[in-house]
Amino acid sequence: MSSVGTPDPNSGWLSDEELAETRRRLPLLYVEAVPVRVNGLGEVTEVGILLRANLEGAMTRTLVSGRVMFGESLRDALFRHLEKDLGPMAFPLLPASTVPFSVAEYFPFPGTQFSDARQHAVSLAYVVPVTGSCDPRQDALELTWMSPADAASDAIAAEMEGGRGALLRAGLASVGRLF
Amino acid sequence: MSSVGTPDPNSGWLSDEELAETRRRLPLLYVEAVPVRVNGLGEVTEVGILLRANLEGAMTRTLVSGRVMFGESLRDALFRHLEKDLGPMAFPLLPASTVPFSVAEYFPFPGTQFSDARQHAVSLAYVVPVTGSCDPRQDALELTWMSPADAASDAIAAEMEGGRGALLRAGLASVGRLF
Amino acid sequence: MSSVGTPDPNSGWLSDEELAETRRRLPLLYVEAVPVRVNGLGEVTEVGILLRANLEGAMTRTLVSGRVMFGESLRDALFRHLEKDLGPMAFPLLPASTVPFSVAEYFPFPGTQFSDARQHAVSLAYVVPVTGSCDPRQDALELTWMSPADAASDAIAAEMEGGRGALLRAGLASVGRLF
Amino acid sequence: MSSVGTPDPNSGWLSDEELAETRRRLPLLYVEAVPVRVNGLGEVTEVGILLRANLEGAMTRTLVSGRVMFGESLRDALFRHLEKDLGPMAFPLLPASTVPFSVAEYFPFPGTQFSDARQHAVSLAYVVPVTGSCDPRQDALELTWMSPADAASDAIAAEMEGGRGALLRAGLASVGRLF
Repeated sequence: MSSVGTPDPNSGWLSDEELAETRRRLPLLYVEAVPVRVNGLGEVTEVGILLRANLEGAMTRTLVSGRVMFGESLRDALFRHLEKDLGPMAFPLLPASTVPFSVAEYFPFPGTQFSDARQHAVSLAYVVPVTGSCDPRQDALELTWMSPADAASDAIAAEMEGGRGALLRAGLASVGRLF
Repeated sequence: MSSVGTPDPNSGWLSDEELAETRRRLPLLYVEAVPVRVNGLGEVTEVGILLRANLEGAMTRTLVSGRVMFGESLRDALFRHLEKDLGPMAFPLLPASTVPFSVAEYFPFPGTQFSDARQHAVSLAYVVPVTGSCDPRQDALELTWMSPADAASDAIAAEMEGGRGALLRAGLASVGRLF
Repeated sequence: MSSVGTPDPNSGWLSDEELAETRRRLPLLYVEAVPVRVNGLGEVTEVGILLRANLEGAMTRTLVSGRVMFGESLRDALFRHLEKDLGPMAFPLLPASTVPFSVAEYFPFPGTQFSDARQHAVSLAYVVPVTGSCDPRQDALELTWMSPADAASDAIAAEMEGGRGALLRAGLASVGRLF
Repeated sequence: MSSVGTPDPNSGWLSDEELAETRRRLPLLYVEAVPVRVNGLGEVTEVGILLRANLEGAMTRTLVSGRVMFGESLRDALFRHLEKDLGPMAFPLLPASTVPFSVAEYFPFPGTQFSDARQHAVSLAYVVPVTGSCDPRQDALELTWMSPADAASDAIAAEMEGGRGALLRAGLASVGRLF
């Protein structure tokens, strides 16, 4: 959920005003990805987390994330946002199944597990192995690789946008790497 | 996806015109449910399928299905549509997890597995045991209970709206009842 | 994995000596359950954890757990162990699917995530809502109900046998209740 | 479940007599794999099915399958059996999660969905993309690549050992490729 930075050049189907209006009326569909490195047996060895500045200039951490467009398949959306956030040489291995490890529900009002001040968004989240080199684009400053244990730490959770620390932990749990 | 019948009294957040407009611009988020009966060990013994007349007056079969509204949780939407389609005495047992057995992608153009002439809809599908008595409301004429084997038959698949025969089979497979 | 207490009256198919021998030769198949209370929308509100004394007399916490016997289905085994550990009035709602939320691999040697000094065991783990009253039998002293947040705490994890704190957290994550 | 052919050179931990004895006393743990080809978006495009002669000389079809040994992890067992059945150049991409798409329960008596005359076996089944070239070894004559639709056909199901046609269909359903 690209809450910051330059306008999304891919938003084409809706103007900014229309999108703003729609965000007050309907839940928006998102996909999110936890990029990981795996070894030869498929075990997750490292987790990639994006670091960027939010609108107020504070540094926050987040996952690969973005909206599904009209007429776009989930796989196309996932691939597009992985490329947008990790660059064209990341070579992600998209999952054979589109069943997510979690469905995260972001609400624009307080008291919910996941929050997004802009909108009600429902996000299908996937763990995605990447095999190439990652070169964050757009507004991300850096992709930080860390161990599953570090990624699940309270320190990282505290820095993640919108409550995504819990989503990241659920992703790690889904691949047997939450301790 | 209630494609027929009387206006949905719950659609409040968008007028009919606004909804029609939005349907050409954004994927809409749906939930769907396969109502089932289970025995004491949790095994699915029967599957409930809705029968109703479509706009052209032809009889079609379908699943419990409906849109997620702005500000509504997936669980609330699932419960609301189960009650709408099965009546207030169905006593559904909603799943402990919101991870669906399948994510069905309906497109308004040809050549896709699932289709919906009205819109691009992405649907999170669940198998939901019901423990009470079902009394279809709104535009459904009848809820037909049948064995898993019958539910997975080609005859039933041919009568189901929008390709949902494949979704039903995936639901049966997810509970070990596709043969 | 009932590591302590009186002989299991259900172990019939293998004598104690045979079982001891087999445990050095083959992985044994187990089922485990995290008993939970759910609300009307299926959301997990409380988690049940067993408290008991181990062979050395120390108090430890654990999950419902036990071996699958020859000729026994997974559902039968799960039901039998739930009844054994929670009593006959627990009224568990077994899942419609036998796909576990995690597969835990316990090894009798150091350096592994899950450990069991007696054997190599592979355990299929489920979250199981219980609707009745629980009355622990056999060697369990007590079933403690706690919030999902408390169940996921480091304090509880430290008291759980064989590394099951991580398994419990994965179970909570699978139902969206790990924060 | 290698029911035919030459003795398994990997059975080391148990002699043939011991294994025969154990098979009458305990459920044995297996892993199974449906080898697939995927496109750049992760979608399954082809399914690989093994063809071989059974003990009576009849041709049957089956999946990659084999026992988990004492002390062996599920990932190691899965990799070992993929290499045994597909050759060393198949380059399988093992899943990041060890949660199977289905747990198949094979019983040595009639009236069950999955059957195995030799034993009670419980099998964790995975869909595994392979990226290299497959060269079946041991007793398999051939690996046949076919479309998901052909793999799910009644004709193929009728030729598969022990009821695995249903397992194959569940695997296809889990990746959205059962129609």
